[in-house]
Amino acid sequence: MKSYLFNLVLFLLTPYFLQAQKLQSPNGKLEMSFTIKEGIPFYNLMYKGTVVIEDSRLGLRLFDDTYVHFASEEEKPSGSSSDLEGGFTKISEQRSQKNEIWNPVLGEKKSYTNHYNELSVTLHQVSSDRNLVVRFRLFNDGLGFRYEFPYQKNFEHFRIREEDTEFDFPTDMKAWWIVADYDSQEYQPQTTLISQIPEQWVKAYDKHSSQTLVKNAVQSPLLLKKEGKNSLYINVAEAAVLNYPASHLEVDAEKFKFKTHLTPNRLGVKAYLQTPAVTPWRTIIVSDKAAEILDSKLLFNLNEPTKYQDTSYIHPTKYMGVWWEMIIGKSKWAYSTNSSVQLGETDYTKLTPNGKHGANNEKVREYIDFASENGFDGLLIEGWNVGWEDWMGHDKEFVFDFITPYPDFDIAMLNQYAHSKGIKLIMHHETSASASNYERWADKAFQLMNRYGYDAVKTGYVGDIIPRGEHHYSQWTVNHYYRIAEKANEYKIMVNSHESIRPGGESRTYPNWITAEAARGTEHEAFKGNNPDQQTILPFTRWIGGSMDYTPGIFQTKLDYYFPGDKRFVKTTLAKQLALYVVMYMPLQMAADLPENYRKHMDAFKFIKDVAADWDDTKILQAEPGDYIITARKAKNSENWFVGGITDENKREFVVDFTFLDNNKKYNAIIYEDAADADYIDNPQSYNIYKKTVTNKSKIKFKMARSGGFAISLTSKK
Amino acid sequence: MKSYLFNLVLFLLTPYFLQAQKLQSPNGKLEMSFTIKEGIPFYNLMYKGTVVIEDSRLGLRLFDDTYVHFASEEEKPSGSSSDLEGGFTKISEQRSQKNEIWNPVLGEKKSYTNHYNELSVTLHQVSSDRNLVVRFRLFNDGLGFRYEFPYQKNFEHFRIREEDTEFDFPTDMKAWWIVADYDSQEYQPQTTLISQIPEQWVKAYDKHSSQTLVKNAVQSPLLLKKEGKNSLYINVAEAAVLNYPASHLEVDAEKFKFKTHLTPNRLGVKAYLQTPAVTPWRTIIVSDKAAEILDSKLLFNLNEPTKYQDTSYIHPTKYMGVWWEMIIGKSKWAYSTNSSVQLGETDYTKLTPNGKHGANNEKVREYIDFASENGFDGLLIEGWNVGWEDWMGHDKEFVFDFITPYPDFDIAMLNQYAHSKGIKLIMHHETSASASNYERWADKAFQLMNRYGYDAVKTGYVGDIIPRGEHHYSQWTVNHYYRIAEKANEYKIMVNSHESIRPGGESRTYPNWITAEAARGTEHEAFKGNNPDQQTILPFTRWIGGSMDYTPGIFQTKLDYYFPGDKRFVKTTLAKQLALYVVMYMPLQMAADLPENYRKHMDAFKFIKDVAADWDDTKILQAEPGDYIITARKAKNSENWFVGGITDENKREFVVDFTFLDNNKKYNAIIYEDAADADYIDNPQSYNIYKKTVTNKSKIKFKMARSGGFAISLTSKK
Repeated sequence: MKSYLFNLVLFLLTPYFLQAQKLQSPNGKLEMSFTIKEGIPFYNLMYKGTVVIEDSRLGLRLFDDTYVHFASEEEKPSGSSSDLEGGFTKISEQRSQKNEIWNPVLGEKKSYTNHYNELSVTLHQVSSDRNLVVRFRLFNDGLGFRYEFPYQKNFEHFRIREEDTEFDFPTDMKAWWIVADYDSQEYQPQTTLISQIPEQWVKAYDKHSSQTLVKNAVQSPLLLKKEGKNSLYINVAEAAVLNYPASHLEVDAEKFKFKTHLTPNRLGVKAYLQTPAVTPWRTIIVSDKAAEILDSKLLFNLNEPTKYQDTSYIHPTKYMGVWWEMIIGKSKWAYSTNSSVQLGETDYTKLTPNGKHGANNEKVREYIDFASENGFDGLLIEGWNVGWEDWMGHDKEFVFDFITPYPDFDIAMLNQYAHSKGIKLIMHHETSASASNYERWADKAFQLMNRYGYDAVKTGYVGDIIPRGEHHYSQWTVNHYYRIAEKANEYKIMVNSHESIRPGGESRTYPNWITAEAARGTEHEAFKGNNPDQQTILPFTRWIGGSMDYTPGIFQTKLDYYFPGDKRFVKTTLAKQLALYVVMYMPLQMAADLPENYRKHMDAFKFIKDVAADWDDTKILQAEPGDYIITARKAKNSENWFVGGITDENKREFVVDFTFLDNNKKYNAIIYEDAADADYIDNPQSYNIYKKTVTNKSKIKFKMARSGGFAISLTSKK
Repeated sequence: MKSYLFNLVLFLLTPYFLQAQKLQSPNGKLEMSFTIKEGIPFYNLMYKGTVVIEDSRLGLRLFDDTYVHFASEEEKPSGSSSDLEGGFTKISEQRSQKNEIWNPVLGEKKSYTNHYNELSVTLHQVSSDRNLVVRFRLFNDGLGFRYEFPYQKNFEHFRIREEDTEFDFPTDMKAWWIVADYDSQEYQPQTTLISQIPEQWVKAYDKHSSQTLVKNAVQSPLLLKKEGKNSLYINVAEAAVLNYPASHLEVDAEKFKFKTHLTPNRLGVKAYLQTPAVTPWRTIIVSDKAAEILDSKLLFNLNEPTKYQDTSYIHPTKYMGVWWEMIIGKSKWAYSTNSSVQLGETDYTKLTPNGKHGANNEKVREYIDFASENGFDGLLIEGWNVGWEDWMGHDKEFVFDFITPYPDFDIAMLNQYAHSKGIKLIMHHETSASASNYERWADKAFQLMNRYGYDAVKTGYVGDIIPRGEHHYSQWTVNHYYRIAEKANEYKIMVNSHESIRPGGESRTYPNWITAEAARGTEHEAFKGNNPDQQTILPFTRWIGGSMDYTPGIFQTKLDYYFPGDKRFVKTTLAKQLALYVVMYMPLQMAADLPENYRKHMDAFKFIKDVAADWDDTKILQAEPGDYIITARKAKNSENWFVGGITDENKREFVVDFTFLDNNKKYNAIIYEDAADADYIDNPQSYNIYKKTVTNKSKIKFKMARSGGFAISLTSKK
C-alpha cells in the first residue's frame, strides 16, 4: 500500500517535474531539452530528429570547509553535505539569442559568425538554500552549456571536488581518442568503438617526461562517429577553460556514456572558486558532414571578445628554427660536457664545450642567411641560454634564468645581424615545467626580449610541474599560462606554448597566445613515431579549439641520412609535408627541416615559401577523420588560394573541384603531388611539380601515395 | 657450524669495524666518537664521562629516479636501491679546529665565540659507488654534525625520502616539547617524561588555521633534563636549515630515542638536492647548568658569516602597533561589511565601511603621537591594505596585492606625519600563506616601501601554504622565506616573519631577517591562552636559534575591560610583562598594548621606554626551565644594565646578586616588582616601583607573585 501510494504521488508529480525546457538552434536542426527529474537536472540533444545525447545528468560535488590534517592519514578533504547534485527545483528561466559577426585577429576566415539561441535556467537547492544557473547556447553547429554560480551571501568561496556532467550516447560509436592524463596530451590517437576503449586503453600510452594517467578515461576534444545511414559526427570538447582545470572524460563502455573528470591538484581539489563564477563551456559539435566539424568555430564563439587595447603587434609568422637538429640528436641544446650545473655558481667560461652546441653564433648566422634569402619572418633558436646541461628529469626548480646566453651565443650581435636581414629572432623559454621559477623571471625575461627586439616567444613545459603538487592541466597551472599570456601582452609579445593546456577557443580573448603544441607533434617522429593517420585526426580533435605548432616541413624523412643504420623516419611523403601547411591551420608556421635539406629540393620548398599563414577564407573540400582531409584556403588580403590534401596509410585518388574559386578569375596554379612511385616508406621524396591555369570550372584528379598528399598554390592572374 | 664461523668472522673483524674516531671539545668536557658497525655509521656523545647519547645511527633514504604516474594509485615515488643507510666503509678522515670571535649585527652580546674541534669522515658505499661525508664540530657547549654530499659524477641530482638521524638517550628524562606539525609551531609547551610523550601527545594540540600533525613526534628545539645527581640539560635542535625542510623528532618512548622526520611536500619528497650539497646541522647542546643552555650560541656558530655587502640599515627597533586591538576583537583588519571581495574587481569606495577598521587615518595618527612622545622608533599598522574581507580560510591565491591601501588609509600623508615625528611606519605583508602570490608582488611591494620610507616589514603566513602541496616547513617554503629575506635586503628592508619556520641561527647569514614569530606568542592569550610557565620554557627552546617577536607589554590583562563578561585574560602580572623585555631577547621589541592602557601606568611604562633592544653583554643569573629565569643584560654601547626575572604559576623569592656589574661604578636603579598582593589572576596590576643606588656588592631580594616577575633598570652614575 505504501509503495502504491508512493508511486501514485510520483505519477501525479511527474508532469510537473518532467516539464521540459526546449531550445532549438537558429536553423532548427538541433534541439535540446532541459528537465529536472526527482530534483536532478538533465539535458538532452537531438539532431534532425535523431537523438544525439540521451537525458544526461548535470551536477557538481563540493568540499566541506574545514578539517584537521594529520600527516599519516589520508589528506584529501572529505566530501560535502552541500554537493550540487540534486534536490533542485527550477525557479526561473531566461531566453535570448545572438547573431553577430566578429573578426579574429588571426584566423581561418576573415570573420566568424556567432549565432545562437540561449536558455538559462536558475535552479534552487533547498537543502543548501543556494542557486545554480545552467546556461545553454544552441548554435547551428552544436551545443555549449556551462554552470554559473551567482554571488550569494551563503555561497561565496568554494572548492570543487568533481564536476559530474554526463554525455550519454544512445548507441556504440566509432571514437577517436587519446588516453586521459593530467600532464600530457602527446599520445598516439586511437580509433576504436566506445565499447572497446577499456581494452585498447592499456595499450594506448608510451612513457612521457611527465605523465599522470587516468585509467579508462580519454581526453577531449573527443571525436565520435555514428556509422551507417543517418551517420553523424560528434565532437565533445570544452571552451573557455579559465580559472578552472582541464577536464577529461571517464568512459562507461557498456552504456556508451562519458562523464567529466577534472584535473586535480595533489590535495584532490579540482577548483578553488569564488562567486560570481562560471565553469568552462561543455561543447558538443554535431553534423552529418565531417567537413562541418572542421569548419565549426563554436569553441571560439563561446569565448569572450578580447579586452586587449592593442593587437597590432600580433601577426602571422613564418619561421625556421635551430631545432630539428637537436630533436634528432645531431646537435645539442647544452653547451658543455657537464651533466650538472648550478645557475649563478657555475662559471660557463671555464667548462669544456661539448662541440655540438646548436645555438652558436656561426650556425645561427647561417640559419639567418637562409631564412632571409627565402622570405621567412622569424628564426627560433633553442638552447641559447645557460642551464641545459641538467634541465630535464631532475625536478630542479631554478633551472633557467631566461636572460643569460651561453658563451657562444652573442645575443646583441645576432639580433642586429638578423634585423639587418629582415629576420626577427624568436625567443625560447623552456621552463622545464618549473612554472614558479618562470614567474619569478618573466619580467626580466620579457624586458630582455624588448631590449633586443624579439616579439615572439616559444615557451615549453617539459617535465613535472613545479609548484610540485600541480599538474599541467590543473587550475593553478591553467592560471599560470594566462598570467604569462597577459604579461607577454604587456610587453607586446606573441606566445607559442608547448606542453601547455590544449586550447578551447581562448585565443579570441587572448589573441597574443597565437598557437600551442598540446598534442603529439612532428618531434615525436624522431622519438617513437606518429601513425600515418595522425594528421587526418588532429584537425578534428586538437585543432577544434585553436591552432597547433605542429612544425611540419620535414623533407629528409629518413634519419639514417644522419645516423647510418638509424631506423627512425617521419611517416610521410614530401608532398604530404607541403599539404600540411594548408590542412593544418598554423598562423605561426614553421619550416622545420635543416637548410641543407631544403637546398636539395628548392622546387618543392617554393611551396613553403609561397604559402600563406593567415586566411580570409577556408573551405573544407573533403574530409573523413582518420582517412583524408582536403582543404582550400584563401590568403589574407589576397586573391590567392592554396589547397592541401593528405591521406592516411592508404593510397587514395581524389578529384578536386575548383568551384570555390572566383567566377571571373583565372589562376596560375603550381601543383605539387606525389609521383607515381612515391611511398612514405620506400620513396618519400618522389614528387612531381607542374603548372597549370585553373578556373572555377576546373577539376583535377590527384593520386596520393600511402601517407601522401598534394599541395596547390593558386595565384590570381592580373 | 656455519653460525659459529660467521660469529668468528665477526669477532675477528670487530676490532677493525669498531675502530672509533674520537673527538673532544676544546675544554675536554665533551667527547664524541664515530664508528661503523656492519657498514652502518654511528655516533655517540659523552659529557664529563657520562653518556649523553648512546651509539646512534646515521643515514638517509633516497628516491629512485623515474616512475610512471597513475592518478588512481598511490602517487608517492617508490623507495630506492641507493639509500645511504648502510654498506659503508670509512675511506678517510680529516681533523681541524677553529677559534674565532665574530660580532653579530644584532645580538645578546657584542661578540660571540666560535670555538670547536672538527672531525670529518668520508664514507664510501660500495653498492652505489658513492661517497658521503659526515662532519662533526664539537664545541664546549655541544655538538653539531651534518651530512655532506660531495659532487660525484654518479651522484649529481637526488631526492631525499627521509633522514634517519637518531638521538638515543640512555635513560628516561624530563622533556619540554610541542607536538610535531608541518605547518604550525603555535602549540602549548608540554612537560612530561620522554616515556610519557605518546599519552600526552593526543591532548597537546588545539585547532590552528593550518596544521598537519605528525603523531608521536615532537618539534625541535627539544629540551631534555636528566634529573637527580649528575643532572644534565640537553637541547636537541638544528642549525642552518637552508634549501632543506625543517625536521621533527619521532619518539620511541620505550627506548628514549628520537629520530629525524623531515617535512615533506605532498608528493612525499623531503628535499630535492644537487651535489655538492649539505644538510642542516643536527645540534645537541649539553650542560649541567640550565643557564649555559640559554647562553649557548652554538646554532649561530654553525651558520656561515653573512655575505651582505651592507648591514648598516639593520637596527634594533622598539615599536608599537595598531594590532592588539584587532587581536582581541575591539577593531578589525577589514574595512567593509563585505565577506567576499576580489582584488581588481571590487570597488572599495562603493562598499559599506564596517565602522571598526583599525588602520584608519585618525587612529594611526593617535598611535604615531603616542609612540613619538614616548621615544619609540616604529609603528606597525595591520589591515592597511585591501583584501582583508575574506583573507583567511578560503585557500585564496590572489588575496592581497600589498600595494593598495584601504580608502581610509592615506599612505603618503601618514608616512609624512610619522617621519615629522621621528617615527617610521612598519609595513605589514600578511600573505595568507599564499607565498606564490607574495613572490609575484614582492618587488612592487618593496618598491612601495622604499618610496614611502618604510625600512621594516612584518610578514605573515596564516593558513595553508599556496603553492598547494607545500607546507610551512617544507623545502620549497623554506627557500621562499630566504628568497624574501634576500629580496628585502636588496631593498634594505628588515624582516619580521610570522607563521614562518623557526630560526636555527641563520640570522648570522641573513641579518636583515631580524626576528620571527614561529611559536605561540602573546596573541594566543586572546585566543585559547598560554600557560604561565610558557615564557620560562621558550627561551630554552624556540629562542635557541634566534629571537622571537613575542609582542609583550600587555598591561590591561583582563579582556572583560573591553567586553564585560569576557573571561579571557593574559596570564601574567604587569611586572612580569616588564621583565619579559629583558628575559626574552628581542631586537625588534614591541609594546603591544593600547596607548590608553599605558597612559594609566606611565610609571611602569617608563621601563618599556627605557629598556634597550640590543646588547653588549648578557648574563643568565638563575634559570630553571618551566620554573624561572633571571637575566641581566648590558645595553649596546652603554654602561647601563637591565635585569628581568620571571616565574611560572608559582610564587618565588630570589636574591639578585649584582656582582656582574662593573667594579668601579655606581648605578641608579629603578626597580619594578610585584606588590605583595599581586597575583596573575586576582590582582595583576599591583606593582611597586622604587629607586636605589646599586653597586656590584649589592644584593636585592625579590618576591615574585604567581606568574609574576620583576624588572630593574641600572643607569651608570657619571
